[in-house]
Amino acid sequence: MIALTKLRTPMLLVNFKTYQEAAGRKALKLAEAAEKVSLETAVCVGLAPQLVDLAPVARLVTLPIFAQHIDPITPGSFTGYVLPKSVKEAGATGTLINHSERRLRLTDIDATIKKAREAGLVSVVCANNPEVSAAVAALNPDMLAVEPPELIGTGIPVSKAKPEVVSGTVELVKAINSDVVVLCGAGITRGVDVTAALRLGTEGVLVASGIVKAKDPSGVLLEFAEAITK
Amino acid sequence: MIALTKLRTPMLLVNFKTYQEAAGRKALKLAEAAEKVSLETAVCVGLAPQLVDLAPVARLVTLPIFAQHIDPITPGSFTGYVLPKSVKEAGATGTLINHSERRLRLTDIDATIKKAREAGLVSVVCANNPEVSAAVAALNPDMLAVEPPELIGTGIPVSKAKPEVVSGTVELVKAINSDVVVLCGAGITRGVDVTAALRLGTEGVLVASGIVKAKDPSGVLLEFAEAITK
Amino acid sequence: MIALTKLRTPMLLVNFKTYQEAAGRKALKLAEAAEKVSLETAVCVGLAPQLVDLAPVARLVTLPIFAQHIDPITPGSFTGYVLPKSVKEAGATGTLINHSERRLRLTDIDATIKKAREAGLVSVVCANNPEVSAAVAALNPDMLAVEPPELIGTGIPVSKAKPEVVSGTVELVKAINSDVVVLCGAGITRGVDVTAALRLGTEGVLVASGIVKAKDPSGVLLEFAEAITK
Amino acid sequence: MIALTKLRTPMLLVNFKTYQEAAGRKALKLAEAAEKVSLETAVCVGLAPQLVDLAPVARLVTLPIFAQHIDPITPGSFTGYVLPKSVKEAGATGTLINHSERRLRLTDIDATIKKAREAGLVSVVCANNPEVSAAVAALNPDMLAVEPPELIGTGIPVSKAKPEVVSGTVELVKAINSDVVVLCGAGITRGVDVTAALRLGTEGVLVASGIVKAKDPSGVLLEFAEAITK
Repeated sequence: MIALTKLRTPMLLVNFKTYQEAAGRKALKLAEAAEKVSLETAVCVGLAPQLVDLAPVARLVTLPIFAQHIDPITPGSFTGYVLPKSVKEAGATGTLINHSERRLRLTDIDATIKKAREAGLVSVVCANNPEVSAAVAALNPDMLAVEPPELIGTGIPVSKAKPEVVSGTVELVKAINSDVVVLCGAGITRGVDVTAALRLGTEGVLVASGIVKAKDPSGVLLEFAEAITK
Repeated sequence: MIALTKLRTPMLLVNFKTYQEAAGRKALKLAEAAEKVSLETAVCVGLAPQLVDLAPVARLVTLPIFAQHIDPITPGSFTGYVLPKSVKEAGATGTLINHSERRLRLTDIDATIKKAREAGLVSVVCANNPEVSAAVAALNPDMLAVEPPELIGTGIPVSKAKPEVVSGTVELVKAINSDVVVLCGAGITRGVDVTAALRLGTEGVLVASGIVKAKDPSGVLLEFAEAITK
Repeated sequence: MIALTKLRTPMLLVNFKTYQEAAGRKALKLAEAAEKVSLETAVCVGLAPQLVDLAPVARLVTLPIFAQHIDPITPGSFTGYVLPKSVKEAGATGTLINHSERRLRLTDIDATIKKAREAGLVSVVCANNPEVSAAVAALNPDMLAVEPPELIGTGIPVSKAKPEVVSGTVELVKAINSDVVVLCGAGITRGVDVTAALRLGTEGVLVASGIVKAKDPSGVLLEFAEAITK
Repeated sequence: MIALTKLRTPMLLVNFKTYQEAAGRKALKLAEAAEKVSLETAVCVGLAPQLVDLAPVARLVTLPIFAQHIDPITPGSFTGYVLPKSVKEAGATGTLINHSERRLRLTDIDATIKKAREAGLVSVVCANNPEVSAAVAALNPDMLAVEPPELIGTGIPVSKAKPEVVSGTVELVKAINSDVVVLCGAGITRGVDVTAALRLGTEGVLVASGIVKAKDPSGVLLEFAEAITK
């Protein structure tokens, strides 16, 4: 496994998606708020801003920054694609791969994990169920995030609504590759959801609207972090 | 047509692709060199860096900056996609759409041109032949760049090898929508190729390896600019 | 334009989609019912069954048969793709291209129209609005079907809900290429919808659930045909 | 595992691709020749014709027939897609999934395997290397075919050029799911290549140009079958 310089588990990974509440200048504000929570609680908070916001965010805060997507390419003629090496140079620590909203071909997931590793980027591959998670584990990513798509953005926490998906994923993934760090996501909006996720065997959560769309993102993030430190 | 604040024709539009010679710090160096040529010759030079390099480049120079690709989306749950509004906020003047290396669905090209306009971005849609160029013209983009894919990166200039593709495109496009600015590209490596392109009725060129991969990018860019001013 | 051997306008084109009511043996039954209506009314009825049902349907009835999709390929290594020449050999007269449920890249639409023509297949390209229809017209297809996606399958007829989309399409398409036959579709369930479509300048309709999902497909098809002959 | 009615291992699975030598009437001729070899040698020979040729081929011969691709859909509004149930009704025994020339998203491979099983189709999932094969094994397909894409169509047999890819795949796949039948493919043109493949632990080969493009397809197929029976 790659040396996770700034990364520690359990971790909170915040996906900014293309939400307006987390774009441009608002991305910078949210990043600063997240850094404050991380410094206060000593909980690792990763941030995944839009690609165009990545360099400014990475310059502003010391938190681990993730791309939302990279392509399995090397330097060359790939207009409009995302070069892993450039994402790294812009300050990223890692990258999401195969998010529910950006599914990839199996062979591209394999190639992207390898390219991420070559570029020094931590790979966090998303999956929708335990079997797909097991398949991902066989590709040796650094981290995996299981998220049932039907719960994403609903406020119904996967850790409560489908605990068997989370624990089943942990079991299948660890059986294939015990080095893979397992996160879960979808519907996480409260500290108790984070606590439940950890009890089911994960080492953190992937969260988006639960933080970004909250009235008080800082407050919710603090609640999440305290659920980890308790 | 959108107000082309910083844009003037004839123009040189330099696509950085994901070339290592135009990535990260090298993107910044190339941008500075291009700005110098533009200031010296008063020729408009546009730059299309990788998305992750866009904000730093836009902050550094006063030239018009283009994204290499945007997606036809509004703020929301689109992890890993490119929000036009964020590209604009990061400092872009416009965007390439449907580049030969990133072909899009017809309905997405239509939607992307509209989203670009809403976000205040100038659209430069790429096409591979006169008929496809005519189809693009019917969608009312700001600019169009015709590039026969088989000549891209070859050093065989489209303006010499396939002049009928260039003049045929100008004719068909103008018949459908005379407001559309037509560029051409593929194989452009010398000033005479630029001169030939203008004579065929275009208002500039889209160039990538001819500048980026040149031993002396500044020198070639100056040669191109002088071909325009002569 | 290609010689439309069995085709006449105005025409009714019935898309079987992957509806179970129009699959396998039920595809054969529906085809026989359609042939009966066509023979009785002398109205041209085209059928677009699933690819796997195309040869049996084409063998059974004398109506013009359409593929629902073809790929812009020539014989070779294209496992899982649809070869225009094989579709023709299996008995097809034409093909849908770029249906709302199977959108294609602009350059592939251009290439597919050309490959269809080479293979002797009539091209019916779908579009979602007048501008996209105009773009398609520039590619010289044989026929075009405009269908606002938001009305497909609703029972709200495009010819009533959005007459300006239909008439605007006819106008833009004919201005670019007067040879292109224009159909419309989406929400067509009654004879009066067909009548309205013809009054708006189209030469027929593309219909799916309105026939296939009807309690009495034969009866509805007869109603449509009579709306044409009146 | 699904009841493999007509299937037996070791097996020869012949992919017709969109080769003209195996399209339309030639598909029928090749199918008859293959049936003759299968009857003479008692070796199981599967055939994967183009979708449009599937029903006629399945009607003509008693061999197990495979689709080259299916989509993970149920009956409904999916114009231009391949419904597993219809492929089954047309006479197919199974289907290729994720062929090198038609790569699928990971989540779609998972869904397609499940839809194939529901429809009573045997799934043969293709993979490009041992890790991807292991990932596929975690999705519980019936069969898996490992084919290094760079050797496909070359005549350089995978079983000789990259024996470690074949044996490595067998090992990884069986460790995850011992029920999965492993085939290999790419460059197989002679009986000794088949023998080598079996020695490396596979239960058959997936072959295309080696048979279809041979001067004497029947002769080569007989040579392959005899390599199995010896």
